[in-house]
Amino acid sequence: MISISRTRAWRLERCTTFKIRLGTTQVRRQSSQIILQLDGRTRLSSFWTYRSAPDITGEGTNDDGQSLLLKGGFIAQEASGYFHFLPFGLRVQDKLSAIIDVHMRSIGASKLALSSLTSQSLWLQSGRLTQPLEAGNHELLAVRDRKDSSMLLAPTHEEVITNFLKPHITSHRDLPVRLYQTTRKYRDELRPRQGLLRTKEFLMKDLYTFDADVESAMETYGAVLGAYHALFKQLGLSYLTAVADSGSIGGTHNHEFHYASLLGEDIVWSCNSCGSAYNEEVLPAVTETSASPSCLKCENKLISNSTIEVAHTFFLSTRYSVPLGLTYQTATPGQAPVPVQMGCYGIGVSRIIAAIASKMAAPTGRRKPRVGLRWPVCVAPFEVLVIPKEEGSAETVYDTIAQSGADVVMDDGPEEFMRKLQHADLIGYPVVVICGKEKAEIRARGIETPVVYVEESVVAETVQRVLEELRAVKHDELSN
Amino acid sequence: MISISRTRAWRLERCTTFKIRLGTTQVRRQSSQIILQLDGRTRLSSFWTYRSAPDITGEGTNDDGQSLLLKGGFIAQEASGYFHFLPFGLRVQDKLSAIIDVHMRSIGASKLALSSLTSQSLWLQSGRLTQPLEAGNHELLAVRDRKDSSMLLAPTHEEVITNFLKPHITSHRDLPVRLYQTTRKYRDELRPRQGLLRTKEFLMKDLYTFDADVESAMETYGAVLGAYHALFKQLGLSYLTAVADSGSIGGTHNHEFHYASLLGEDIVWSCNSCGSAYNEEVLPAVTETSASPSCLKCENKLISNSTIEVAHTFFLSTRYSVPLGLTYQTATPGQAPVPVQMGCYGIGVSRIIAAIASKMAAPTGRRKPRVGLRWPVCVAPFEVLVIPKEEGSAETVYDTIAQSGADVVMDDGPEEFMRKLQHADLIGYPVVVICGKEKAEIRARGIETPVVYVEESVVAETVQRVLEELRAVKHDELSN
Repeated sequence: MISISRTRAWRLERCTTFKIRLGTTQVRRQSSQIILQLDGRTRLSSFWTYRSAPDITGEGTNDDGQSLLLKGGFIAQEASGYFHFLPFGLRVQDKLSAIIDVHMRSIGASKLALSSLTSQSLWLQSGRLTQPLEAGNHELLAVRDRKDSSMLLAPTHEEVITNFLKPHITSHRDLPVRLYQTTRKYRDELRPRQGLLRTKEFLMKDLYTFDADVESAMETYGAVLGAYHALFKQLGLSYLTAVADSGSIGGTHNHEFHYASLLGEDIVWSCNSCGSAYNEEVLPAVTETSASPSCLKCENKLISNSTIEVAHTFFLSTRYSVPLGLTYQTATPGQAPVPVQMGCYGIGVSRIIAAIASKMAAPTGRRKPRVGLRWPVCVAPFEVLVIPKEEGSAETVYDTIAQSGADVVMDDGPEEFMRKLQHADLIGYPVVVICGKEKAEIRARGIETPVVYVEESVVAETVQRVLEELRAVKHDELSN
Repeated sequence: MISISRTRAWRLERCTTFKIRLGTTQVRRQSSQIILQLDGRTRLSSFWTYRSAPDITGEGTNDDGQSLLLKGGFIAQEASGYFHFLPFGLRVQDKLSAIIDVHMRSIGASKLALSSLTSQSLWLQSGRLTQPLEAGNHELLAVRDRKDSSMLLAPTHEEVITNFLKPHITSHRDLPVRLYQTTRKYRDELRPRQGLLRTKEFLMKDLYTFDADVESAMETYGAVLGAYHALFKQLGLSYLTAVADSGSIGGTHNHEFHYASLLGEDIVWSCNSCGSAYNEEVLPAVTETSASPSCLKCENKLISNSTIEVAHTFFLSTRYSVPLGLTYQTATPGQAPVPVQMGCYGIGVSRIIAAIASKMAAPTGRRKPRVGLRWPVCVAPFEVLVIPKEEGSAETVYDTIAQSGADVVMDDGPEEFMRKLQHADLIGYPVVVICGKEKAEIRARGIETPVVYVEESVVAETVQRVLEELRAVKHDELSN
């Protein structure tokens, strides 16, 4: 190997015509107005977004939440069914993904990232495809490369991961296995609609589990259900867990997690008496004219809810391990290899963002349209916004809040104060700190004292207390 | 909106048949052997990987680094040109992406995530496509959906981002803009080869910059070059910065960043005297028989280096803003709109991982094949591995190291001690701590004292000191 000494490499660097910049940098226009202030603080002047959105068009603008995501610069539509995540939206998505990681780690699941493209032959082997894909006639997006390989953009990865694990799961000692990823998935929706709710490209967390027998697969199923409940509790919006059809396998190992929403396209029937909830397909046929169905547990009349499905847990048994040949040697010598018991567990990451935006959009009054989003602290693009009102103190206030560990941004743009407040309402920061000459005003909606005025010296601790209070809020009960 | 109270939602949760598990969980086989120990510590028994790799096949196995990435469970091949990132590999990739984020933030660039699919019509408009794609006859992967829209899996996003910004950049007050993403890109390689170095799907950081005039575009160019140098210095491997062809635009605003490697498919000519380096295309034609070309600066004879290109910086001028109509109103009233000055700046994230693996693979002796990888501390899958040798103290040692802020994992698997050491050599942890009965042995290759024995009470501080020492190592000068 050719050895190039570091000294020489450094010489190469020094001879570039451009100086390496360290520390504070200011990019000025000819008018000397500072347009990029780079001092380590997060400033809206350099964090790219827009203040006045151009005309918002695209799918889903009938939904307040979706319109506000577009207007606030969280997402933008590229084509029917395809969305970009802009800086604000990507921060929400990254925070939600990180929270999901914590809950997946809590059950010992390891994270990987499978290729987005996969060969059609595995799908023919599993039987999910019965014949090779023709372009454009299926829910799957087919990709044909120059070697005429038949690939597809995967909507889920059961086949791929089952096939991948074959050389790695051969003995009972190799089990259990819990593997997940949070990656872009693809589905050729016939009619993309409702913004992020029904798209052709979407971010999904998919966990696949592999166990030696049904008993341990059920233990795994329970652990994942527990992790899902912990996740949805942390997000702070009420949700429904519905029993769904398990097909020919039987038993209660198919659950769906739903957010109630008038915009939802799913129906969940819930029981006020025993708290059970059901996907329509597990109930006797419901017709327009028939009475409400009864609870399968307590026979109480069920109530219908329009919902958005945001997650599911599903015991697969040997649905994929048998056709793809994922078997293992048991501890009993001489016994023939046994197929692995599998489960798959999805969370619609971009769907949750759309559902939260829709449910938490802040009303300003009964007849006025909604003017802003509102985020649970844990997924807010920033937890705290600092707005300078008088010159001077905002940077100190920003620094003390940042040092206390909060995720803070400063609105140092050239806009007028009132426009900054309106923009803050649109974005939906949990806490807004307005730095006046003598005191700081701390605003947070949905808690007992939504506005307090404090001395600069106690701003950081007050903000931390308010954030703590907000984290405990039951968001669905907010009204102002 | 239907109101479902949280109390009711919680009741729903309680009635699930599975208990929510919190705190320490142990999943046992019937033999009572603990197979999943979930106590918040990162343990190799639950972090999924394999100890004995199945036969390694696939592209690039002639390269030690690539073979070791496959053998160590960092990556796996799905199909020709497509790789999965397994848990170890994903950790390296995530750490590298996070470091890139820091350097992008240092120049005020904001992160977004553009859709992977884009319409072919924009490419026809920019002139990069001269006619609609037929499947399989081009470097681009075409996707045809059920509505017969002509989409493609984007290799880069100049067209998309230029088009997206049109409503947002209309005035000189909207500039400058610096936007980047780190996402999967696609290219239909005719001959995928050398593992992660030349694939059809790859992770790339792409930054796009937008300035009002050439002068500020050059200021931006310099800032990005500075950030790239800071990144490559942090990675700690020597690199070459070569001047490349700027086409008809002229000037020094096209640079490539290369790692010297015998496996590289690029050639960079470097000057021992003045430190300049050049891509072949900027030099007079070099033939097999002709003498070495001369330095364009000092006329010294140049030396040829086989290299791997891992990043580039390129001033685009108005290449895309003119055909796609991205113009802005200057500060001068009455002046016609002016096209925006653009730049594009790529970093091959998966390429850097392959290059580091290849360059840092640890030799055990002259004639023996390489047995292990070696990672710079900043991108190592874990910084520290703790191996228990005698029962008892390993968890305390793990905890003190974790509390000191290091990224640590414990090898608590059932394997024999020697096999754990071999596995540690393969993975390439910067620091290995072996917990004996009385003292802990701390191993790190490439520093002055590669093995030290310390009391348990000072393990954490010693590990921190060793990590600090390793961070300052010039990795290319390692020999053992």
